[in-house]
Amino acid sequence: MTTFRIQTSARNQFVEITDQVRDAITASGISSGLCVVYCPHTTAAITVNENADPDVVHDMLLYLNKTIPQNQTGFRHAEENSDSHIKASLVGPSVTLIVEDGEIVLGRWQGVYFCEFDGPRTRKVMVQVVG
Amino acid sequence: MTTFRIQTSARNQFVEITDQVRDAITASGISSGLCVVYCPHTTAAITVNENADPDVVHDMLLYLNKTIPQNQTGFRHAEENSDSHIKASLVGPSVTLIVEDGEIVLGRWQGVYFCEFDGPRTRKVMVQVVG
Amino acid sequence: MTTFRIQTSARNQFVEITDQVRDAITASGISSGLCVVYCPHTTAAITVNENADPDVVHDMLLYLNKTIPQNQTGFRHAEENSDSHIKASLVGPSVTLIVEDGEIVLGRWQGVYFCEFDGPRTRKVMVQVVG
Repeated sequence: MTTFRIQTSARNQFVEITDQVRDAITASGISSGLCVVYCPHTTAAITVNENADPDVVHDMLLYLNKTIPQNQTGFRHAEENSDSHIKASLVGPSVTLIVEDGEIVLGRWQGVYFCEFDGPRTRKVMVQVVG
Repeated sequence: MTTFRIQTSARNQFVEITDQVRDAITASGISSGLCVVYCPHTTAAITVNENADPDVVHDMLLYLNKTIPQNQTGFRHAEENSDSHIKASLVGPSVTLIVEDGEIVLGRWQGVYFCEFDGPRTRKVMVQVVG
Repeated sequence: MTTFRIQTSARNQFVEITDQVRDAITASGISSGLCVVYCPHTTAAITVNENADPDVVHDMLLYLNKTIPQNQTGFRHAEENSDSHIKASLVGPSVTLIVEDGEIVLGRWQGVYFCEFDGPRTRKVMVQVVG
């Protein structure tokens, strides 16, 4: 298992981590199998989406922030970050990727993102590869 | 593969199953690899989120029930549980966890939850571990 | 790894791919382990849900299209398919299934779906099995 840290700079932010995931696969020495990218935090998530036009991430965050506002009638959690927990479970705590020929199988426009929903914070990401 | 049953007591409910997942990993005898926690039902899901303050789960269910109401204009499914199916696919049918040193790698505040969206029912959960 | 193609016929559509996933598992020769069904596109996704009553898929698409409309105030992405990217990350780029006795472990009402959110297009799906 490989662990790496990232520093986020906003309350809601997508940070691309494709290169760090590639490095973890190379370090594992496994050429064919599966790779799990895991977020050990309850107010952040992992996803795969377009990494060509940054406007895609802009629009995804705009939608999430508009439809899951921070303060909602009836919310009880005293930390006032229930929106962050909701986003975390909807986007999901991990992605499972395919490894072939020592590389992650990604589509032409795909990158792997760490999704910060309660930053800025220092965060950890774990990567496990099995063959 | 390990299978266990749980009994839910409400239409919408998160039941923590972290201990049962830990037991399945111990039973597998695998010390390093991946663990999939799988829900074989179409109106329930699996997620990872905070297990310290129960208000987090309260607020997550409040949000899901408010934004995905049971009866919506245009719904055709005669069982009147289309909301449950929608919640199931958005939260997701499984989580994939990392296993190291014979333990699931979870963040400090993370627990594994079975998410009931059409209870109360008796449900099954499957756990598979590969090394 | 197995790759297969599907042709979608609408902008938003769920296409059942359970049979193709079963074929990939048979071809792998693996009797016990995990199977990842992966979508290499950023405007499509993979899910598991009911395959008995087609009204379930109808209602799921009705909900997604109503709550994630194509044009939203503030969207910048010039391709005008930000809704498709949002749906892709919320439903998710892959599912991880359990394999036992050479078969996917699915609940009685479950099927595996390719979720098209920006069709019609020719799409690819990858399946990896590890034991």
